[in-house]
Amino acid sequence: MTSDDFLADCRARLAFDLLAPTWNGVVLWALRHGPYRPGDLRERIGGISPKVLTETLRRLQHHGLIERHAYREAPPRVEYHLTSLGRSLLVPLEAIGTWASTHGDEVMDALDRREPGEPHTAP
Amino acid sequence: MTSDDFLADCRARLAFDLLAPTWNGVVLWALRHGPYRPGDLRERIGGISPKVLTETLRRLQHHGLIERHAYREAPPRVEYHLTSLGRSLLVPLEAIGTWASTHGDEVMDALDRREPGEPHTAP
Repeated sequence: MTSDDFLADCRARLAFDLLAPTWNGVVLWALRHGPYRPGDLRERIGGISPKVLTETLRRLQHHGLIERHAYREAPPRVEYHLTSLGRSLLVPLEAIGTWASTHGDEVMDALDRREPGEPHTAP
Repeated sequence: MTSDDFLADCRARLAFDLLAPTWNGVVLWALRHGPYRPGDLRERIGGISPKVLTETLRRLQHHGLIERHAYREAPPRVEYHLTSLGRSLLVPLEAIGTWASTHGDEVMDALDRREPGEPHTAP
């Protein structure tokens, strides 16, 4: 893949769009050792509201990255697990995570070095 | 790095935040063979407005990923290039791109398979 293909190819941009909502990546990564019930996921992740988790799970499901399984039990039990497509996305996710553990501090330092009064830019 | 570290560690989440604005990744990738002037970048990328490109360049600069160099010429010439920190981010970016070329169609198929009338969920 040349750099020009990468820029012109909508499928390549799709991956950026997929990882754009921060929670997509975090929830996928959390499901690595799944299946998990939504409540367990929330506990593992921390800081995600039930509403946002539900939206994220639905989004990942629509994109074919996870599957929902409802057990006929009382009370009903629902679990989510990665599809093989979702599992394949763990490879670039791990590359991102590795980069962050190695270089995250440098980014924080760069943000700290900005001149005072400079407008804040969100990532 | 264990999965739990990954979830609990704010630096790891930082990487997701960094890649959240789609254009961050695209502009970084486009700068791979830089330095480039903003006009050249816009041509290489396609579909990015001057305003959004300017905002993206400023953001990447604040995060220490690119540097701006202004030449004392008439008319003044400005170029952007990757820092070594920015260059290190090309590794996970390439992993994302590789995944997208391999699996992008599967995601598109999954989106097409959604039941009609199902609400659209953005990526």
